[in-house]
Amino acid sequence: MNLERCYVITYIIHMQSGRPSCSPERARFSKRISIEQVEEGQLLAPKFDRDGLIPVVATDADTGEVLMVATMDAEAFLRTVDTREAHYWSRSRQVRWRKGTSSGLVQDVVEIRIDDDQDAVWLRVRVREAGASCHVGYRSCFYRSVKLDQSRPGSPIELRFEETEKKFDPRQVYGNAPNPTRL
Amino acid sequence: MNLERCYVITYIIHMQSGRPSCSPERARFSKRISIEQVEEGQLLAPKFDRDGLIPVVATDADTGEVLMVATMDAEAFLRTVDTREAHYWSRSRQVRWRKGTSSGLVQDVVEIRIDDDQDAVWLRVRVREAGASCHVGYRSCFYRSVKLDQSRPGSPIELRFEETEKKFDPRQVYGNAPNPTRL
Repeated sequence: MNLERCYVITYIIHMQSGRPSCSPERARFSKRISIEQVEEGQLLAPKFDRDGLIPVVATDADTGEVLMVATMDAEAFLRTVDTREAHYWSRSRQVRWRKGTSSGLVQDVVEIRIDDDQDAVWLRVRVREAGASCHVGYRSCFYRSVKLDQSRPGSPIELRFEETEKKFDPRQVYGNAPNPTRL
Repeated sequence: MNLERCYVITYIIHMQSGRPSCSPERARFSKRISIEQVEEGQLLAPKFDRDGLIPVVATDADTGEVLMVATMDAEAFLRTVDTREAHYWSRSRQVRWRKGTSSGLVQDVVEIRIDDDQDAVWLRVRVREAGASCHVGYRSCFYRSVKLDQSRPGSPIELRFEETEKKFDPRQVYGNAPNPTRL
């Protein structure tokens, strides 16, 4: 159900019985009324895309390293605010997930930031246990850089490993769970 | 034209005349053949979404602060690699843009990282002049945080300004250009 419809139905049912049928939690996101309110206001009014998702960047709260880029649906966003543990929406698996439930690598949220037009989220996190956020086993999902010095027009662009040692063995941690990477 | 077709057509025309009709630049992105190659390989094989875009996080190369989240199309990605200046695709304006062309706030790229499944990009940048990346005038687009300590179930979630002073006056820099924020 989209947010706009949720507001209307919540309001009507609330007026009739006081018991809303769709999550009243949604009302914690404010309506987007004007550009000035969205950009300069003091209320959270996130914009979810046509799939109901918002992009999220998680960085290490201490080093500033980007750990991962993911998405949240509205419910994952609210759970992250309320529990201060990162929750995401997996597009490849089409499920909501609390990061670290199977691996133990929970992301404790230190700060949540929202951008100017409120269509992107930045989480500053501390990662428990091995301190890794990448399902391949590395600390950051961004363990490779583009070889800028060797990039020549016409030839394939090459990558360099910036992390050379895995923090955990993904086979031990995830077992036979399907790999989330899609071709 | 999708990338797969581009490869085939480039190859056929190259075999016939040596003059490809679609950009041979596309061949600089390698094909995505296997999960192992995408995750553990040394060739750039990015995954663009159904709109031909890939999400990009730009951080300050020195402080680690997240400056903005944006998107690139294939051409913006290649221009960024070749010029070492950040290029993006604007979804609200539906144009490719070199960041800073109108404002002077060019982002010089220090490093480009790609994530495990190669569907997200991290740019580490240094910003010229006023050192700001946000069209509202702030240093970072993420100038507000969620008030975690005051967030209560049922009540609207509030924001706190983490930056209180704008680095430039957007009216002076952008004049009457339309605001990119969409409701």
